[in-house]
Amino acid sequence: MSYTFSRALAGMTGTATRDIFKLLSRPEIVSFAGGLPASDCLPVAQVGEITAEILADQKEALRILQYGATEGYPGFRELLGPLLEEVGIRGAGLDQLLVVSGGGQGLDLMCKAFLDDGDTVLVEDPTFLGFLETVRAYNGKLAGVRADGSGIDLDDLEAKVRRHRPKLLYAIPDFSNPTGKTWPEDRRKAVAELAAKYGFMVIEDDPYSRLRFAGTPVRSMKSFDTDGRVVYISSFSKTVSPGLRCAFAAGSGEVIRKLAIGKQGADLHTSSLSQAIVKRYLEKNYFYPGIEKSLPIYRQRKTAMIEAIKRHMPAEFRYTNPDGGLFIWGEFDAPVNTVEIFKEAIEKNAAYINGTVFFADCSGSNTLRLNYSNESPERIEAGIKALGEVFKGRIARGG
Amino acid sequence: MSYTFSRALAGMTGTATRDIFKLLSRPEIVSFAGGLPASDCLPVAQVGEITAEILADQKEALRILQYGATEGYPGFRELLGPLLEEVGIRGAGLDQLLVVSGGGQGLDLMCKAFLDDGDTVLVEDPTFLGFLETVRAYNGKLAGVRADGSGIDLDDLEAKVRRHRPKLLYAIPDFSNPTGKTWPEDRRKAVAELAAKYGFMVIEDDPYSRLRFAGTPVRSMKSFDTDGRVVYISSFSKTVSPGLRCAFAAGSGEVIRKLAIGKQGADLHTSSLSQAIVKRYLEKNYFYPGIEKSLPIYRQRKTAMIEAIKRHMPAEFRYTNPDGGLFIWGEFDAPVNTVEIFKEAIEKNAAYINGTVFFADCSGSNTLRLNYSNESPERIEAGIKALGEVFKGRIARGG
Repeated sequence: MSYTFSRALAGMTGTATRDIFKLLSRPEIVSFAGGLPASDCLPVAQVGEITAEILADQKEALRILQYGATEGYPGFRELLGPLLEEVGIRGAGLDQLLVVSGGGQGLDLMCKAFLDDGDTVLVEDPTFLGFLETVRAYNGKLAGVRADGSGIDLDDLEAKVRRHRPKLLYAIPDFSNPTGKTWPEDRRKAVAELAAKYGFMVIEDDPYSRLRFAGTPVRSMKSFDTDGRVVYISSFSKTVSPGLRCAFAAGSGEVIRKLAIGKQGADLHTSSLSQAIVKRYLEKNYFYPGIEKSLPIYRQRKTAMIEAIKRHMPAEFRYTNPDGGLFIWGEFDAPVNTVEIFKEAIEKNAAYINGTVFFADCSGSNTLRLNYSNESPERIEAGIKALGEVFKGRIARGG
Repeated sequence: MSYTFSRALAGMTGTATRDIFKLLSRPEIVSFAGGLPASDCLPVAQVGEITAEILADQKEALRILQYGATEGYPGFRELLGPLLEEVGIRGAGLDQLLVVSGGGQGLDLMCKAFLDDGDTVLVEDPTFLGFLETVRAYNGKLAGVRADGSGIDLDDLEAKVRRHRPKLLYAIPDFSNPTGKTWPEDRRKAVAELAAKYGFMVIEDDPYSRLRFAGTPVRSMKSFDTDGRVVYISSFSKTVSPGLRCAFAAGSGEVIRKLAIGKQGADLHTSSLSQAIVKRYLEKNYFYPGIEKSLPIYRQRKTAMIEAIKRHMPAEFRYTNPDGGLFIWGEFDAPVNTVEIFKEAIEKNAAYINGTVFFADCSGSNTLRLNYSNESPERIEAGIKALGEVFKGRIARGG
């Protein structure tokens, strides 16, 4: 048997992350490869309590088990306004909000709504691997925009907008995956203005901004959008639970309607039980205390990783030191190929993700991403020590 | 503001079903328009009990709330083998099974995996509206294949396969939506053989076969597939709960791998809580008793509708009389336009779906679909009586 798959999926054989996860089943491996929230922070007791309450209500249980509306579970979208106002987005009506099955579905629906074969999508380089794969699955053309320590480079962005006339720009302005970088306010405003000037759409992906354990929050790019060009996507995966697959998109009424049409064909609606749980979690005011409880854990783990890097990594290793989120990004000022060295690291029981998978053009073979959220400080110390030995050894041998 | 949406979605402004549902919020309207399982049959008590049990287990609760595998929740796919064997599909391994977020996601992923712009998809005419919309969203070209009282016409199918060289054929061989028709075994075998001979893929959509309240089950088309050409998609929406969005696809390992890659970008994985609930529902043997309990209800409602049709509908109305599923299909041997008459029916507090939305070429303006599963026998009698008066009046006035 041989199959003729679509051009979009024919070349896709599974993401790098996926293959790596298969290597990581051994518990002795310290994994900095994933992007999981800390298991210690998952609200097991609260979800158990909430779920018992909503399913004990016969009328609500019937509504949960029957088909639901594509836009969202009754009463749930009404609770999202305050979350948006916190990031500076005021007065979003219900018709400007769509519940989605994880932030990734929001990205997929934006591509479905805007991309034709061969259209260009700009991304801040490096960026979230899952989005790059989604664009490829729509036969989109990717072009990376340079970034500095504070995020996207505005001159390079405008140059690439002029050259490529992109349909979409994708960015994670808060604690970016993979770099942990956060854009200052002026850069957000400038990008929203460029989108209005040149007429491209912006996906502002925000899974992480609430996981801030230091510094001052920055208002969202969407809050500067006066032209309906920015769609803001936020997720409950890192603040409540990823397993429930519950997130939302906020945009102009016209765009949200189109995303809802796309969602009808995708999964009709997000699990009503998941939505009802998150709804009640917000209503019972478990949301902010849950985040407050998790922040010291994330702060401690990030600090442990930074300290371990200082102790064990070679002098040629430059790295970010984020105020929140899940990731530290590293680059070697030396001929070190992180793709090749991965196997050696695994043999020493430590895993990372090589940085090439996050670049639009698969460059960056001297870079890597380290996740600190789901390992204890002790294991972080041991894992970075192992990585330090591997990389120092390689550099000593000339890369 | 004006947006340049993708060609695929630019023309889609919401399905007919969706617009109709908005009209149906008034409780005095008897709705034969939907496709909802009977609310009386939803297992509220069992889901409440099961959910409490699984969330009380700290280890399982943590697994449910954390990220899960794209293919499915641990242990869930292992339970699907017996369900497949009942429809004649033997020996499906785990690598041949993928959990999806509702059957519709399975259809979407099949289009994503196989369709390039302009590829032809054959459908048994008329067929499930949602699938037609999905194909349109992938810029696919639809071609309808004629059907007789027993399902797809094999001669017309082979002629259209030769003419169009389709990538996909889509069919619902058991209690089709919208017709209620079931294909006999020989036709299933013949279609599987044609797929192997000409090298096209078949989507066998099976949401309804377990809702059989009369007659003898027929083995699946997939059970005749010796060439890896048929993907069988089944859903728990009509046998457990649609609100949980839980279904599965069975196909060759190579195709399932590709669907899983597509699903990674779509929603990463189906809600783990939904999967864990259905898993335990199967383990506790609630599945078959639940269906057994629902069958007399569906049988009674179908019978009520058939009797009411005999009493009230005009002599020019021909209709199917299914042994299961949710739908009766009707055609007028008279110049009756069901699209135009809909408004009049709504004024008389009765709703149906006009048949044109189920045809690949939007023909069939003398046809309609009636759903009997979610109204009581008394309301069915009243609703069909109202429809009978509307249609008799129209025919008396010459259509």
